[in-house]
Amino acid sequence: MNKVVIFGVGLIGGSFARALKEAGAVGTIVGMGRSRASLQRALELGIIDVVGDDIATAVKDADLVLLAAPVAQTGPILEALRPHLDARIVVTDAGSTKSDAAAAARVALGDKAGRFVPGHPIAGRESNGPDAAIPDLYRGKKVVLTPLAENDERDVELVAAAWRACGAIIHRLTAEEHDKVFAAVSHLPHLLAYALVDDIAHKPHAELLFQYAASGFRDFTRIAGSSPEMWRDISLANQAALLTELDAYMAQLARMRAQLAAGDGAGLQAVYGNAREARERWIATIEAAEAPPAQDQAE
Amino acid sequence: MNKVVIFGVGLIGGSFARALKEAGAVGTIVGMGRSRASLQRALELGIIDVVGDDIATAVKDADLVLLAAPVAQTGPILEALRPHLDARIVVTDAGSTKSDAAAAARVALGDKAGRFVPGHPIAGRESNGPDAAIPDLYRGKKVVLTPLAENDERDVELVAAAWRACGAIIHRLTAEEHDKVFAAVSHLPHLLAYALVDDIAHKPHAELLFQYAASGFRDFTRIAGSSPEMWRDISLANQAALLTELDAYMAQLARMRAQLAAGDGAGLQAVYGNAREARERWIATIEAAEAPPAQDQAE
Repeated sequence: MNKVVIFGVGLIGGSFARALKEAGAVGTIVGMGRSRASLQRALELGIIDVVGDDIATAVKDADLVLLAAPVAQTGPILEALRPHLDARIVVTDAGSTKSDAAAAARVALGDKAGRFVPGHPIAGRESNGPDAAIPDLYRGKKVVLTPLAENDERDVELVAAAWRACGAIIHRLTAEEHDKVFAAVSHLPHLLAYALVDDIAHKPHAELLFQYAASGFRDFTRIAGSSPEMWRDISLANQAALLTELDAYMAQLARMRAQLAAGDGAGLQAVYGNAREARERWIATIEAAEAPPAQDQAE
Repeated sequence: MNKVVIFGVGLIGGSFARALKEAGAVGTIVGMGRSRASLQRALELGIIDVVGDDIATAVKDADLVLLAAPVAQTGPILEALRPHLDARIVVTDAGSTKSDAAAAARVALGDKAGRFVPGHPIAGRESNGPDAAIPDLYRGKKVVLTPLAENDERDVELVAAAWRACGAIIHRLTAEEHDKVFAAVSHLPHLLAYALVDDIAHKPHAELLFQYAASGFRDFTRIAGSSPEMWRDISLANQAALLTELDAYMAQLARMRAQLAAGDGAGLQAVYGNAREARERWIATIEAAEAPPAQDQAE
């Protein structure tokens, strides 16, 4: 690719830029965003080559545009992009929810919705901003693409190739599948971790409790250190699927509460044992998958 | 101390032995336990000096006996010890629940209950057995003692001094306080993590879900890798306090479910934001506490 434009040059966008550069897969990278300071820092760090001024100049002759800004900006940025999208420029994003991104694209882009290929890289770190960006953030990690019916297969392949150049493994799901899956394995756990810390923090003896919280608590609640604004947006964007998962979990807790109240040790042990076994199988699977060189799956 | 007897020479008991030896705080360490193989291995590793045969010989002239076997064995071991406890031998334990340990001691030891000083070292690793034992497992970690009304203060101090020799920081709580605190910050999180993994494992599309679970899920569920038998016992031993905490948590989830269903972004963000702030304060506090050399607190 000759020219890539990235909206949001923090951890996600900056690491994409660094990885493409390291792979020699891009000529010029133009950074766009609301924070002048972040753009300036990304320029200093060599993450981007140019700080974009107006959107028309930035995207002129671009091959690919990545939206890596907060998801609430997806609609407005797509609207601003619309007049400048020729038949060649492909736009993708990195948001954690995909049905809403597809809907936003159809509203904002109208008959150009096919220019937008929704994506979700499954990678992250606790730190943020341009200084956190690293070239191997996506190495061996999954990127889920959820193409629209309007997409041209060549445009989907262009996005897939860019992520592959970053070392990622491409998966494809429908937006609905994606949102159901991530409601269960990501969005619900975040809600549960936030719920526990907030619950404890509101107890009158919270200080005493936190004094004795140890490494198990620390790991269990690590995801409650994530951005509240971002997770509010994700929760609302994936409301229906998250409600479904939350209801199933609350029913599970109600069953276990009954076991505990009845002193049903065998019942509790069955749940605990099944959970441990399932987790061990899962860990063994991911460790096996991470061992060999990265290959595409599910395509 | 001239002689220390340890029932259970795995991670907890073995690390206690190693730490005492490294500190030069003990003459002879006698290992006791149901697994001949573990005792033999502990002997080979130099964790213990002697494998005990009969309980009478093992505890003769001992200063301290540590019970580091599964908690279901606490009562039976104390009963076996009773005839051999002179007025000098102090017995302590390392179990995760303390009201039940106190009750077991009163039943098993009768008028010798005062010989038993209940304790709980707040330390662990994912690995088990004599090979996992390390001398600095307890360095800078808390050990909570929950003395009985029957205890002589000198005996409590002997147990405290032994743990201090291992580098631990001694805290004191009543057994009831202890069990309420750990229900909230340890036992409930374990139950919640087991609940989530089991819930997901039972879904028809479990394989698809696990395929996309990532590092956040891994940390959140790490404690669901713990021993199901041990956590069944802890759950039942701390039933009342755990039910109280579980009910509070389920009420919290019900409130958040209503916020989510109503699209109340501000309400969700308030919970998420408060949780993140509380967690950050907690992390800052423990990091500050771990920085300087260990000192006793709350005594």
